[in-house]
Amino acid sequence: MNHLYSSVLLENVVHEFSKLPGIGKKTALRMALFLLRQDEESVRQFGQAVIQLRSEVMYCRECHNLSDAELCRICSNPRRDATIVCVVETVRDVMSIEDTMQYQGVYHVLGGVISPMDGIGPADLAIESLIQKVSGGQISEIILALGATMEGDTTNFYIYRKLKQYPVIVSTLARGLAVGDELEYADQVTLGRSIVNRIPFRMKNEE
Amino acid sequence: MNHLYSSVLLENVVHEFSKLPGIGKKTALRMALFLLRQDEESVRQFGQAVIQLRSEVMYCRECHNLSDAELCRICSNPRRDATIVCVVETVRDVMSIEDTMQYQGVYHVLGGVISPMDGIGPADLAIESLIQKVSGGQISEIILALGATMEGDTTNFYIYRKLKQYPVIVSTLARGLAVGDELEYADQVTLGRSIVNRIPFRMKNEE
Repeated sequence: MNHLYSSVLLENVVHEFSKLPGIGKKTALRMALFLLRQDEESVRQFGQAVIQLRSEVMYCRECHNLSDAELCRICSNPRRDATIVCVVETVRDVMSIEDTMQYQGVYHVLGGVISPMDGIGPADLAIESLIQKVSGGQISEIILALGATMEGDTTNFYIYRKLKQYPVIVSTLARGLAVGDELEYADQVTLGRSIVNRIPFRMKNEE
Repeated sequence: MNHLYSSVLLENVVHEFSKLPGIGKKTALRMALFLLRQDEESVRQFGQAVIQLRSEVMYCRECHNLSDAELCRICSNPRRDATIVCVVETVRDVMSIEDTMQYQGVYHVLGGVISPMDGIGPADLAIESLIQKVSGGQISEIILALGATMEGDTTNFYIYRKLKQYPVIVSTLARGLAVGDELEYADQVTLGRSIVNRIPFRMKNEE
C-alpha cells in the first residue's frame, strides 16, 4: 500500500499508528477507520489521554516507578511493607510481580542493568539511591529480582558488594522448574540448579 | 492482568488503546510504554493527529469518500475521468481499487449495501445522489463494484433498475479464477462462471 489516501488527515493518523511497535500500515488503517466511527468526544478523550500521559506522568521519588504524584501508589500505600525492597530492572517488571499478588513489600526500579557492551555502567542506573536507602537503616531485606542474564548477574553482584557492609538480608528469586514444566523439556542448567537447591516437600494444603 | 497500575494516567491510555480492534491489554500496555519513551512533541503530534482526524475529516460532496475538503483529492483531480463512476460499498474499497493503480475514473461510495436483515434499505444509502448524478447526462459508464454477496447482488439489481432509463453503460467487476489460482482448488461456482463467461485468449505482450 503505497498510494495517497484521499485524506491527508487520515494519512497522518495511519502514519502515527504505524510507528507503534508491531503495527503495520494495514492495522494502522483499520484503527484509524475504527476511530472515525466513534463519536467525537471519545476520540478526543483517546488523544488527550495519550498526550497527558507523556506530559504529566513522573517517576516516584522513592522507587522510580511510573507515578502520577511525587510518591507512587505503592510507596504511599500504608499497607505495603516498606522495610522489604524488591530491586527490578524496569517498570514493566513491577507490573509483572504485582500481577502475581504475592508480594507486599515495595520496589526499587534500577532503569536497566549494567551492560558494558551497551555502554551502561552503574552510574547510569538508580543504584546510588538504593544504597542511600539501605544506609538509612530502615530496610530489612533487599530482593534482587533482575533477569537471569549475564548482565543481570553482573548487576546483582555489584549491588551485593555495595550492600555487604550494611545489616540487610540480600535475597534473590528462586530458580527452578516452572510450574507445570515436564522434566524432559527443562533445560539442563535449570534442572541442575533445581536439584542442588532442592526444597522441603510440602503438600499444597499444608501451606 | 487485573491489577491497578501505579499510574492512573497510564491506566487511562492502556484502557483507550485496548478499545481498538484486535488490541488486548498486553499490547495496549506495550504501546503506552513505547509512547512514554518518545519525546513529548511527537507524542503530542500523535494525539493531535487522532483528534484532528475525527473532528475535521469530511465526506466528499461528490463521491462521499473521506476528504479534507468539500471535494476529495480524486474528484478534484483533472486527470481522472469523471464520466466513469465506480460504485463501491465503503471508503476501504476505494483504497483497495486505488491500490491496483488500474483505474482512472472516479468513485461513488454508497456507505453500505441493501440488507433487510440489518434494517438497511435503499434510503439509508447514497443511491439517490448516484441516480441524480447519472440523470445529469455527464456519465458514460457506471461500474458496480460491490461485494459478491447476496446483499451486494440485491443492491446491484436495485441500482441497475433505477439506471435503466438513462443512456449509461452499466458494468460490473469480472468474476473468475483469481490470478495464480489452480483449477483444482477453485470453488465450483467461480469455476462454472469462468467457463460460461470465458474471454478471448490473448498473449500478455499483445495487450
